[in-house]
Amino acid sequence: MALKDVLPVLRNEDGIRAVLGILKQRLGERLQSGADMRAQHAHTTTYLPAQLPDGVAFPDSTEEIALVVRACAEHRVPVIPYGTGTSLEGHVNAPGGGICIDTSRMNRILSVNAEDLDCEVEPGVTREHLNTHLRATGLFFPIDPGANASLGGMAATRASGTNAVRYGTMKDNVLALTAVTASGEVITTARRVRKSSAGYDLTRLFVGSEGTLGVIAGLTLKLQGIPQAISGGVCPFPSVEAACATTIHTIQAGIPVARIELVNALQMRAMIAHSNLPYAETPCLFVEFHGSDASVKEQAEAFGEIAADLGGGPFHWTSIAEERSKLWKARHDAYWAALKLRPGAQGISTDVCVPISRLAACVAETEADIARSGLVAPIVGHVGDGNFHVLILLDPANGAEIHAAEAFVERLNMRALAMEGTCTGEHGIGQGKVAFLERELGGAVDVMRAVKRALDPHNIMNPGKIFSV
Amino acid sequence: MALKDVLPVLRNEDGIRAVLGILKQRLGERLQSGADMRAQHAHTTTYLPAQLPDGVAFPDSTEEIALVVRACAEHRVPVIPYGTGTSLEGHVNAPGGGICIDTSRMNRILSVNAEDLDCEVEPGVTREHLNTHLRATGLFFPIDPGANASLGGMAATRASGTNAVRYGTMKDNVLALTAVTASGEVITTARRVRKSSAGYDLTRLFVGSEGTLGVIAGLTLKLQGIPQAISGGVCPFPSVEAACATTIHTIQAGIPVARIELVNALQMRAMIAHSNLPYAETPCLFVEFHGSDASVKEQAEAFGEIAADLGGGPFHWTSIAEERSKLWKARHDAYWAALKLRPGAQGISTDVCVPISRLAACVAETEADIARSGLVAPIVGHVGDGNFHVLILLDPANGAEIHAAEAFVERLNMRALAMEGTCTGEHGIGQGKVAFLERELGGAVDVMRAVKRALDPHNIMNPGKIFSV
Repeated sequence: MALKDVLPVLRNEDGIRAVLGILKQRLGERLQSGADMRAQHAHTTTYLPAQLPDGVAFPDSTEEIALVVRACAEHRVPVIPYGTGTSLEGHVNAPGGGICIDTSRMNRILSVNAEDLDCEVEPGVTREHLNTHLRATGLFFPIDPGANASLGGMAATRASGTNAVRYGTMKDNVLALTAVTASGEVITTARRVRKSSAGYDLTRLFVGSEGTLGVIAGLTLKLQGIPQAISGGVCPFPSVEAACATTIHTIQAGIPVARIELVNALQMRAMIAHSNLPYAETPCLFVEFHGSDASVKEQAEAFGEIAADLGGGPFHWTSIAEERSKLWKARHDAYWAALKLRPGAQGISTDVCVPISRLAACVAETEADIARSGLVAPIVGHVGDGNFHVLILLDPANGAEIHAAEAFVERLNMRALAMEGTCTGEHGIGQGKVAFLERELGGAVDVMRAVKRALDPHNIMNPGKIFSV
Repeated sequence: MALKDVLPVLRNEDGIRAVLGILKQRLGERLQSGADMRAQHAHTTTYLPAQLPDGVAFPDSTEEIALVVRACAEHRVPVIPYGTGTSLEGHVNAPGGGICIDTSRMNRILSVNAEDLDCEVEPGVTREHLNTHLRATGLFFPIDPGANASLGGMAATRASGTNAVRYGTMKDNVLALTAVTASGEVITTARRVRKSSAGYDLTRLFVGSEGTLGVIAGLTLKLQGIPQAISGGVCPFPSVEAACATTIHTIQAGIPVARIELVNALQMRAMIAHSNLPYAETPCLFVEFHGSDASVKEQAEAFGEIAADLGGGPFHWTSIAEERSKLWKARHDAYWAALKLRPGAQGISTDVCVPISRLAACVAETEADIARSGLVAPIVGHVGDGNFHVLILLDPANGAEIHAAEAFVERLNMRALAMEGTCTGEHGIGQGKVAFLERELGGAVDVMRAVKRALDPHNIMNPGKIFSV
């Protein structure tokens, strides 16, 4: 199945053959070219057709990443950086073949500087691995995109998730990067400091560049203190509008909400069935507050009052860890719950983000569109940021359904753009949203192209992604 | 007086003459080339020698900025963007002459979107103008670098200041920019949304680029709700070490301090004399807390306990606006107070930033260095970020003093770099810190150069700043 045309990239057969030879010699078993391994690394958890790399390298160090990139640069062969393969827009596909760099062996936590609230990690460390390692320090890394993704991949795609309303996205939580450039040079983008005005912000140029400017080989990350207390709960609303208005008022009131997640009525139906939740099938907000004991109580009560004023409630909240965990497990399982709405269907996740004042209208229009289209497609949203996801449940063998889904995704993106929004709040462009990026930013994409050509003149770094060069 | 060599830029006399002719015709009185006006725009509040532009343009619109840039691009003439001229490292000097673009006429606030907590402004709007305008909305723009700088200039230099520990720097508070590129194209870097993963982060590439990639012609800014309550006070410490340790513990404890400013003993002496403060001449922390009534009380008490445990105090705090204002006025007047330590002297402000765990050592060694050097140089610091300033009070006619100050600044920067720090936390590179940037980031500066050459192939945008091309 193919929902979209992807950018073509020419194959350089001679170069690929030469690089495979060089890397087999240099890396031995850590260069794999079997069909299964290659297919596994093009398994992109997307609707896009798999496009396999010709080899998968497993470097052990920054120097080995540089070795692979230099060989590829010399022979003009594509390099596709790979973390855990959980990105959603075809980021790890290899439309022109080439060498996939799997960073999973680079999974060391190099330092934790508790006084500075930062740490240095290799790119293959996953966020769960890091947080398990940090537990004894009283610190945690807040970005949670759902999947147990690698931190290198999360930086490359500018990931965010449920905590972003309070703690920001990867752009806000990466202090510095070690990167291997397209020519195989190793650079460090910044020092291990909380802020700097020293030159161009290369850290944030690489964060979100989706592997098209170089390979992330190391990260210095900002950490947060684990809050003394956490409270949270679920609040039902009569409408998406009331839930969104409550979100706006909560943020305007300066309540430092840590998570505020919209679950629409259809998704609630799925979660009630899957997780046995004691709620009705109406739009709900899942909220969480971090702070001192007194502060999380105060925040929860203030939120409850705002919700009640806007027709929501009753808001039941708790500070008891087990009860909270059950709620957030249900929220995290939203994808699996939704799949059960249509057994056997494939789930296609897409995301857009709009100014929060437009969110209620955007979600309501999208729900109406889904109803008209005859699609089964529940909605969840990081509403504090104006970001929401639609999960389209498709029969991949049904051409008419695929066509309807394609047309729906196009309307969804154009609707978000018409509301001053963006075609992706956190999934990235990859192969799937190339056309929408052009419509979103116009001439700015030419500036991105100029940067790309300057840093990767032979277009070897993850070609065919973000924009045509 | 000249503390440093600055990067040379060749003058293009024919081009400059041609551009002056074109712009006089197009802009009339809004192109000024009198000596006073030119000198005023090279008054850089720095120790660096003034280097005057050949003309000063006062555009009224983005289109007029583009007109000026296109004329300069065609004739290969430097363009120097200018906000309020309060930058500290020679950013607005014109080493190769050219046209200064003064954005002061572009001072309109285009929209305030209270529900979205954002606003759109022209680049010449100052932060005080914006905050006065916002007052009735219950919102404010938190970044406060001290001077009443223009928002365009603050973005260009990645400014921060006393609030950064809580609210971040300009990089965290600019959602999108309108920029005129070196070829005179107008681009918008992002949509008006809280987050996006749509392509390269051009917003943060332009923030901190010091006018070397283009002219900032408009900004979409994130706003904050004015806190329900604010508390604050001053806490004396027996040593810089105790003050820094208190800062670290405060942040580790998750107290969301809004401001935490170190004032060393010499600077306290100056401020006590200038502002008649009832404190002793020992290192002090000026702190402020934002939140609900209950929360600011809780924060202040928790801070006071940490300080007492580490030998500090007594910590007197207040929620009364008049008393807080007096304290923060004293902190804001630190520069003027310090000048009185040596009447007739010129003040030279320099800044570095280190990991907070190294801050006490860095400040203590710097104090010892100042004592050994015979300089008069008080210290203030945004210690929550590890950032501090030294104000060297110099007799500009005394060559030996200038030499001593130059050597001290070099040692200060190398000390910060040796402690994993940066040569500038918030002032930027400009002309003054070019040599230190190379020592700080090495090969990464070559990547910056490649970006610069790609976006400004003729090196007309603020040439001679940040690095040699």
